Amino acid sequence: MMGPSSSAHRQDSAAQAGALASQFAQTAATRDASGGTPKAERDALRSSGLLALSIPQDYGGRGAGWSETLDTVRIFAQTDSSIAHVYGFHHLQLATVQLFSQPAQWEPWIEQTASKQWFWGNALNPLDERTTVRRIGDWFEFSGKKSFCSGALDSEMLLASGKDEVSGRLLIAALPTARAGITINSDWNCFGQRQTDSGSALFEHVRVEAAELLLDPGPLSTPRASLRPLLAQLVFVHMFLGLAEGALSEARHYTVNEARPWFRSPATRASDDPYTLKHYGEFYVALEGTRLLATRAATLFDDAWRKGDALSTEDRGQVALAVAVAKVAASRAGLDVASRVFETTGARATHGALRLDRYWRNLRVQTLHDPVDYKLQDIGNWVVNAQSPVPSFYS
Amino acid sequence: MMGPSSSAHRQDSAAQAGALASQFAQTAATRDASGGTPKAERDALRSSGLLALSIPQDYGGRGAGWSETLDTVRIFAQTDSSIAHVYGFHHLQLATVQLFSQPAQWEPWIEQTASKQWFWGNALNPLDERTTVRRIGDWFEFSGKKSFCSGALDSEMLLASGKDEVSGRLLIAALPTARAGITINSDWNCFGQRQTDSGSALFEHVRVEAAELLLDPGPLSTPRASLRPLLAQLVFVHMFLGLAEGALSEARHYTVNEARPWFRSPATRASDDPYTLKHYGEFYVALEGTRLLATRAATLFDDAWRKGDALSTEDRGQVALAVAVAKVAASRAGLDVASRVFETTGARATHGALRLDRYWRNLRVQTLHDPVDYKLQDIGNWVVNAQSPVPSFYS
Amino acid sequence: MMGPSSSAHRQDSAAQAGALASQFAQTAATRDASGGTPKAERDALRSSGLLALSIPQDYGGRGAGWSETLDTVRIFAQTDSSIAHVYGFHHLQLATVQLFSQPAQWEPWIEQTASKQWFWGNALNPLDERTTVRRIGDWFEFSGKKSFCSGALDSEMLLASGKDEVSGRLLIAALPTARAGITINSDWNCFGQRQTDSGSALFEHVRVEAAELLLDPGPLSTPRASLRPLLAQLVFVHMFLGLAEGALSEARHYTVNEARPWFRSPATRASDDPYTLKHYGEFYVALEGTRLLATRAATLFDDAWRKGDALSTEDRGQVALAVAVAKVAASRAGLDVASRVFETTGARATHGALRLDRYWRNLRVQTLHDPVDYKLQDIGNWVVNAQSPVPSFYS
Amino acid sequence: MMGPSSSAHRQDSAAQAGALASQFAQTAATRDASGGTPKAERDALRSSGLLALSIPQDYGGRGAGWSETLDTVRIFAQTDSSIAHVYGFHHLQLATVQLFSQPAQWEPWIEQTASKQWFWGNALNPLDERTTVRRIGDWFEFSGKKSFCSGALDSEMLLASGKDEVSGRLLIAALPTARAGITINSDWNCFGQRQTDSGSALFEHVRVEAAELLLDPGPLSTPRASLRPLLAQLVFVHMFLGLAEGALSEARHYTVNEARPWFRSPATRASDDPYTLKHYGEFYVALEGTRLLATRAATLFDDAWRKGDALSTEDRGQVALAVAVAKVAASRAGLDVASRVFETTGARATHGALRLDRYWRNLRVQTLHDPVDYKLQDIGNWVVNAQSPVPSFYS
Repeated sequence: MMGPSSSAHRQDSAAQAGALASQFAQTAATRDASGGTPKAERDALRSSGLLALSIPQDYGGRGAGWSETLDTVRIFAQTDSSIAHVYGFHHLQLATVQLFSQPAQWEPWIEQTASKQWFWGNALNPLDERTTVRRIGDWFEFSGKKSFCSGALDSEMLLASGKDEVSGRLLIAALPTARAGITINSDWNCFGQRQTDSGSALFEHVRVEAAELLLDPGPLSTPRASLRPLLAQLVFVHMFLGLAEGALSEARHYTVNEARPWFRSPATRASDDPYTLKHYGEFYVALEGTRLLATRAATLFDDAWRKGDALSTEDRGQVALAVAVAKVAASRAGLDVASRVFETTGARATHGALRLDRYWRNLRVQTLHDPVDYKLQDIGNWVVNAQSPVPSFYS
Repeated sequence: MMGPSSSAHRQDSAAQAGALASQFAQTAATRDASGGTPKAERDALRSSGLLALSIPQDYGGRGAGWSETLDTVRIFAQTDSSIAHVYGFHHLQLATVQLFSQPAQWEPWIEQTASKQWFWGNALNPLDERTTVRRIGDWFEFSGKKSFCSGALDSEMLLASGKDEVSGRLLIAALPTARAGITINSDWNCFGQRQTDSGSALFEHVRVEAAELLLDPGPLSTPRASLRPLLAQLVFVHMFLGLAEGALSEARHYTVNEARPWFRSPATRASDDPYTLKHYGEFYVALEGTRLLATRAATLFDDAWRKGDALSTEDRGQVALAVAVAKVAASRAGLDVASRVFETTGARATHGALRLDRYWRNLRVQTLHDPVDYKLQDIGNWVVNAQSPVPSFYS
Repeated sequence: MMGPSSSAHRQDSAAQAGALASQFAQTAATRDASGGTPKAERDALRSSGLLALSIPQDYGGRGAGWSETLDTVRIFAQTDSSIAHVYGFHHLQLATVQLFSQPAQWEPWIEQTASKQWFWGNALNPLDERTTVRRIGDWFEFSGKKSFCSGALDSEMLLASGKDEVSGRLLIAALPTARAGITINSDWNCFGQRQTDSGSALFEHVRVEAAELLLDPGPLSTPRASLRPLLAQLVFVHMFLGLAEGALSEARHYTVNEARPWFRSPATRASDDPYTLKHYGEFYVALEGTRLLATRAATLFDDAWRKGDALSTEDRGQVALAVAVAKVAASRAGLDVASRVFETTGARATHGALRLDRYWRNLRVQTLHDPVDYKLQDIGNWVVNAQSPVPSFYS
Repeated sequence: MMGPSSSAHRQDSAAQAGALASQFAQTAATRDASGGTPKAERDALRSSGLLALSIPQDYGGRGAGWSETLDTVRIFAQTDSSIAHVYGFHHLQLATVQLFSQPAQWEPWIEQTASKQWFWGNALNPLDERTTVRRIGDWFEFSGKKSFCSGALDSEMLLASGKDEVSGRLLIAALPTARAGITINSDWNCFGQRQTDSGSALFEHVRVEAAELLLDPGPLSTPRASLRPLLAQLVFVHMFLGLAEGALSEARHYTVNEARPWFRSPATRASDDPYTLKHYGEFYVALEGTRLLATRAATLFDDAWRKGDALSTEDRGQVALAVAVAKVAASRAGLDVASRVFETTGARATHGALRLDRYWRNLRVQTLHDPVDYKLQDIGNWVVNAQSPVPSFYS
């Protein structure tokens, strides 16, 4: 069982993530321009041991809790939110096999992940129903396409989903990415999150063994199994928060070191202009509230994780509510800060070489994963009608 | 020394405050209409023992920490923010004598407050310099007017300030309200916070003994002494939060029990309208963030209080920042919620008998105590220039 | 036919309304406190001739267009929005009989209104279906209650609606308020618009002649008849705008003449504080946009009115869209300005005697007449799906 | 003298600009990616005759008023805001010579512009003081650098400014871009407005004749001469508005034709989702208000232009105010719409090939030209203190 992380443990992983994040920052703007797979950075993550951060020590991992793991996601997002995404989703897949299957099934995967520095990718998008599953004797065949497969390229393992041809049920498998018949396309091209490789996958008569299907208890089948989407949302919360923190940090640096006061300003330094200071005050108030909401949601998630199968529907509902609140706050505060910081730096900070627009672009793309409107509806339904969010892959 | 409150202790005081708040709620609308002194409610507070809540047990009090005490302020504000104000300021004056003078001086006041159920009032407004202090032999004479004297009427003790005729220095004294020459006027009449008796006082040749002046260390003279304005601001933070929670709670009750869906709504119950649910979602996100900011600021204040004279300027700056952030968030979220909740109830909730506008009126009046603009400037100055708020009676 | 008003004509009516508004301003705060019928002010309106402002000159009126008439509504709302409401609704009723019936029927009413200085009231709320209509031989009997009857008290004529007992159809009659069986109750008590007498009416076996029913063409039966709710909405638009202008004007006066700069301000006068100036800039930008939207909507309404029965569904749709846009803008800008102006005046402007909160209270109450949410949905439906708002009593 | 454009004239130029804008739209995304000079599009503008649109007919131009000319700027900005910028600034330079010099001086330039399809560029940035002017006998020598020279590349004529070495006075000259010693660098690289060539220029011992200096009356020397910055601001207003209209139009197209309703939506088409419709309603309300403010400011500018030297300081102040209000509204509404439209399209609209982020990027870059904060301060100063904006190159 994963225990709460010690403070020292958290500082170590944060420091390590911070050091890597600084390193990634050197090329983040260039790689934002180029897109494609951040191979060197993914390998640096492999070497760092952070891919085993959330893996319990009994299985060779570093035994961090989810709050600690999510904090490293946030730190990566401050300088490189594509890395933060594929890294966070790697840990999400590790959680998924633990939540959707029994230990006998997932233990070997987890152990090998720790020992072999595996990277897990995603081919799970449940809203894309083009991949079908056919039972053939005692094995299964996956065939069809799947979109939004973040981090599938350059991964060792893959979570893939398909729709049972007969029952229509969603089936999820853990597979080696190298399995015959799987093609991961290099076709991701959005204006943000450009190195997440969130393109398409093609399954052509892919043979999947029964032992590779996550059937017991299966997806969203129990309160505990329903924690999975909440962890996915928490990865986003910490990405959005990290992105906003990164935008604020770069803008502050520019304001202090590069910006000139407007000729109408009473201040002699841009960093003393009364309107500039007020803008920064507003950014900070929004981010500080978001930080606390994110921390609390992660803490509640850790508590829920530790309850295991004892987790009740009500417990799960409380986590879902806290996660939804943090998600809305992080989405809105993030976008606002990333767009408005330029009002504190002036026009010259829009220079193409700096690519400071990438914070807004990354936030804008990823905050569309699922609509804020319906997240707010869920929260309102709890406030007014005392009904918790209904578990789905998005809530 | 005041220790951190136990959880059970906190639940007891919260339950007691909640019971009283429910009782006050019965007449809150009527008393909002009438204004004047809430004598019966103040006496109920005296009987309850809650006026001794923040007093250490060694002096006959209930030994609550400031977080616990502030939580009762918030609870009162949910139904009656005038009571919350004078009750919170009573505890603020108890803190003030502990911060501005030495134990030998303040111990008797604190002990008698606990044993005799004294209520302390405020006559301290440092921006109103009309009261002057003249030294006459070994005593002092206060003369002049003072505005915004919240809770001074029906108080046993008073903190009063004046300006030294010679040095121009601000002098603060703790005095029996019944002292000869003191007149507290029933002249408070604002459109909100109507039972706070925040009117004027008149000092006519009031004799003040040297032992009644708070000179060692005196106001804002040390980091610890500079905690006083932060507690005043925290009282406001918890009032604003409680007011917003009260507005939300009443609106929710109306939406669920009284409101009808608009004829264009797809919902058959007002409580299922998609726009109504989204509004409530937005209110909740704003208040939840504010709650966490308030809690954290109060916790930091408790920590700082326990450090005593060891409190450094930097420590104090951290608390000041957290308090400022919570104050801005509570002011803005509170006003927004109190104004917009009507969009979820419909026109009939504006009926005069309900006086549901009082949440906005109370918030509007009290959030003007000191400008949000300059609070944001302070926060921005910390973000950009790493400078903590300069201690004053407002920061 | 009503022609476009000459510029001189408009200046005359605006000047006259302005003079009356200044007169009403002397007692507006007091009357806001007392509520009840503004009898003296209603009589002053009668004497002024402005009740005949929108009546064509051929019928003894002053022949103003609707833009001109609505402008006087806005001017009254700057100091007394209750007066603006009942005055605007008086003209609305005059329009209603012209839109819902034939000249032979409405001409006598209009002429007598001009010659006898009649005031028309409202008992038309179509969402309140408690009043039923029974046909008895060649006359009809109205029985039941009706809510939100603005301006019905102290009126000479009344528009009343009921539901046909047999067909369920909405029937509208123009009746002398003094007709036997009609009781107008003094039971209006909301926290805003306190002198609009928008309380309840009781119809007890009220005999209504066939010639008093507005059946040809009847309510909302043609594009032209469907102009009626748009005029009602325009009355609100101009009220909201006038209220916001009044709030801004009073705040400005306070800032310039009474407010003191905050002790942290670089300015020596409150009126030079950088944050205060920015707030006023924001208020003005919002109101200026709203003013232009209101003017354009009123102009389009005038054009549509002049088209008479030639008005097409599409023409009507264009007016409806412009009115909806102006209504949303006026609601939001008005509430925002009326709540935030206090941040430019400081705490002392909340003094009870000034009753400056009444701008927010009046706006808050009246902006709930019909939900902004569904107005925005209508506008969105036009933008996205090119569908005009479906005519109803609210759109 | 330039008369008010006839309605037919306006429709013609709008239709022609619209046709060109549709043509430019085909490659706008590609050219946004590549940056550089839009040579083909600039030549298409030359051939179109629209470069002579604002030139009076007496000088061989098309005699459009400024409202008409600005309307074509808005239309270009709907699909290509870089073109809109250099095109708008071309007309701005034509106005500049008319405002800063006497007819005898500017007539030949204007006539040749009409007859030879000249394009004018900008090298005028008055905040960049690195270019100095030395008097040498009866001619002058410009030497130094200049930044933000929009549209200078591929121009026939240039407005260039320098600082008199002796007096420190700002001197402005109209020069052939091909003049010896002038180098226009291809070094513009910002994340928005990528084809405006707003890079740097270098003046090396550039000989400028006295007859090329705009000295009578010279820059900002009279109310009329002070109209120049207002026209610059109006170009921006119309660009921002066009950009927002373009973003809305593309989003609408996507919502209607490509988007799918969220699985939680009650709607079967994305274009019927209640939240989506409300978003569009909000966008439209903001843009409609901005459109009217822009139109009014342009109309006032036309009026002021026609007054010629009779224009008073007060007249100019009224235009400045209207322009400032429109600028703030367009900046804010534009950025908001360009960022939020994605919430109505869903994640797939962020596909890189569409480059729909360019609306936000273009707006973000150009709205930083001069700070909204100080524009609001100017407006507030007018509201509170009745002081018009002080003429500068930015107000």
